[in-house]
Amino acid sequence: MTRPTWSLNCPVRIDATADRVVLAHGEGARLSRQLLAGHILPRLGGGAPIDWRDAASVTTEQQRLAVTTDSFVVSPLFFPGGDIGSLSVHGTVNDLAVSGARPRWITLSMILEEGLPLAVLDAVLDRVAWAARECDVLVVAGDTKVVPAGAADGLFLNTTGIGELIDPVPSGPTAIQPGDALLVSGPIGRHGVAVLCAREEFGFDPPPQTDAAPLFPAVELLRASAGTHVRTIRDATRGGISAVLHEWAAASDVSFVLEESQIPVTDDVRGACELLGLDPLQIACEGTLAAAVSADKADAAIAALRADSRFAAASIIGRATEKRLTPVAIRRLFGSEQPVDEPTGALLPRIC
Amino acid sequence: MTRPTWSLNCPVRIDATADRVVLAHGEGARLSRQLLAGHILPRLGGGAPIDWRDAASVTTEQQRLAVTTDSFVVSPLFFPGGDIGSLSVHGTVNDLAVSGARPRWITLSMILEEGLPLAVLDAVLDRVAWAARECDVLVVAGDTKVVPAGAADGLFLNTTGIGELIDPVPSGPTAIQPGDALLVSGPIGRHGVAVLCAREEFGFDPPPQTDAAPLFPAVELLRASAGTHVRTIRDATRGGISAVLHEWAAASDVSFVLEESQIPVTDDVRGACELLGLDPLQIACEGTLAAAVSADKADAAIAALRADSRFAAASIIGRATEKRLTPVAIRRLFGSEQPVDEPTGALLPRIC
Repeated sequence: MTRPTWSLNCPVRIDATADRVVLAHGEGARLSRQLLAGHILPRLGGGAPIDWRDAASVTTEQQRLAVTTDSFVVSPLFFPGGDIGSLSVHGTVNDLAVSGARPRWITLSMILEEGLPLAVLDAVLDRVAWAARECDVLVVAGDTKVVPAGAADGLFLNTTGIGELIDPVPSGPTAIQPGDALLVSGPIGRHGVAVLCAREEFGFDPPPQTDAAPLFPAVELLRASAGTHVRTIRDATRGGISAVLHEWAAASDVSFVLEESQIPVTDDVRGACELLGLDPLQIACEGTLAAAVSADKADAAIAALRADSRFAAASIIGRATEKRLTPVAIRRLFGSEQPVDEPTGALLPRIC
Repeated sequence: MTRPTWSLNCPVRIDATADRVVLAHGEGARLSRQLLAGHILPRLGGGAPIDWRDAASVTTEQQRLAVTTDSFVVSPLFFPGGDIGSLSVHGTVNDLAVSGARPRWITLSMILEEGLPLAVLDAVLDRVAWAARECDVLVVAGDTKVVPAGAADGLFLNTTGIGELIDPVPSGPTAIQPGDALLVSGPIGRHGVAVLCAREEFGFDPPPQTDAAPLFPAVELLRASAGTHVRTIRDATRGGISAVLHEWAAASDVSFVLEESQIPVTDDVRGACELLGLDPLQIACEGTLAAAVSADKADAAIAALRADSRFAAASIIGRATEKRLTPVAIRRLFGSEQPVDEPTGALLPRIC
């Protein structure tokens, strides 16, 4: 795989005279202040006086908080339907949401490669700001480091999220019982296919789009429709649905059987997977969750999700069984049952 | 500057057969789980069942929390007196401490370069764990990404810290009044000189050591001895004391005059700075704070700090004055007064 460059797919045109990141932007002195005042705070500061140098202060009346962190190294920086900036918000708020929390605050830390055009940085920051507004979270603290050309690939982000836990918090995979229904909130595998196609320039037209989007609304719908009958929820990111179900099987006393006919897959993902020999079950989503819900509440949960146009393709894709030798199996369209492999990785590096 | 390698200065011997990071360690599937179970959780998990996949839950009775984030790209990974692992803890808990908070929780996110020996990762994680215990903070959430060889330089870390604010919280630089005393908690410039000497192999014997260490104890001593008379506190990291004072001058109605004779500088830092043409005022510290304290409490504050052997070199290095044309000036040993330059950066890339 050739090394991607940060200009790939960037929506702004960059020429040889473009202003670029220099090492001094990371040294904490005058140029750092200019970067903060001229590029970062106008986009992310929200008008409030924020001391981004040391620590921000936040006020909560909740005693129980959820905390999560994620670094983002996706390549290319921009891809159909998304980009590293909005992904760094969606990925982190989704980890909070599926843990049962309302996302409230995020931090943003950037590692920039010397020579990155400032216009690329600005475009990424604009997308961070857009996604933070969409998800109703505040960017409360930040950090910028610059490394010499060659020591990083353009731009890496880290976001850490803090949310307020809302009762009832899902119990976790240990609560899954045989007979429970497995739900997904939408078509699977879209994010990984979108990034892979953008990187390799296969020329699909139109190009597959990522599903990256906030999942807090879907979690709210599950909570409202199924309450404590929601056993556990997970955003199916790296490793896809298969990785989630293998983890749940390892953590619980159940196995899983999927119905291929019930798994929502878009035509473009199906086509790309067939062409490339990939299994959609192993491809990452960034705006699609999996949930285990007790069987008697599954129809209500699906109805609640489908009533929201963002989750119109929600589906019951299988069920939990008594523990079997095969942790995850799938009943194919023509009736035969096959094991689902646990992904070992490296299928798609740098997708998030 | 030649590109440093991650084996430089590492305390473990690495040979050609060493186990190394592969891309699949970052893919969220089986190898990721093995990395987590075999290398990360044994060192950082603290024995408690932690769900490091999505979000951790923490419980606080404080309504006011401090939040800070920092990425660490220091090169080399190990240097006299410190390393990227312990620095990533000290840097973040110190940002919380100088903001008036008791550090409680941190997250740890890693970007690893394919090919990094696992023994180097283990050595770094051991140091994270050691520093977290020393600082009495829990590592509550984590993330690992792996990028292909050449797309990062060995290992980058991000830590995000959450602390509980303790009254009285220092007001900030706007509260500084003419006549206030400027304090430092120890000798300045040690961290930057230590990293620079380790990287360039100047051959100083013994090599200069970093000052990296927790500052929460020093802040507690200031709080106990001077209470609300502590105007503002800052850890003097990138850009050194000069960057801190220029920021304070820009944010307040005062200027500063330093007394060179009162500024603690170790012999090795003084020697290295003279040889290399550097100004200790512009060199980063990682375990030394600057504070502005009302004049009538300054002696009590210094006495409290000096009574702790870790801060025995604490000193009043200058004072705030009415606003002048020169934001920061210094009275040299022989009496003449000179402006102190604001660092513009790039003096020492990748020191933290």
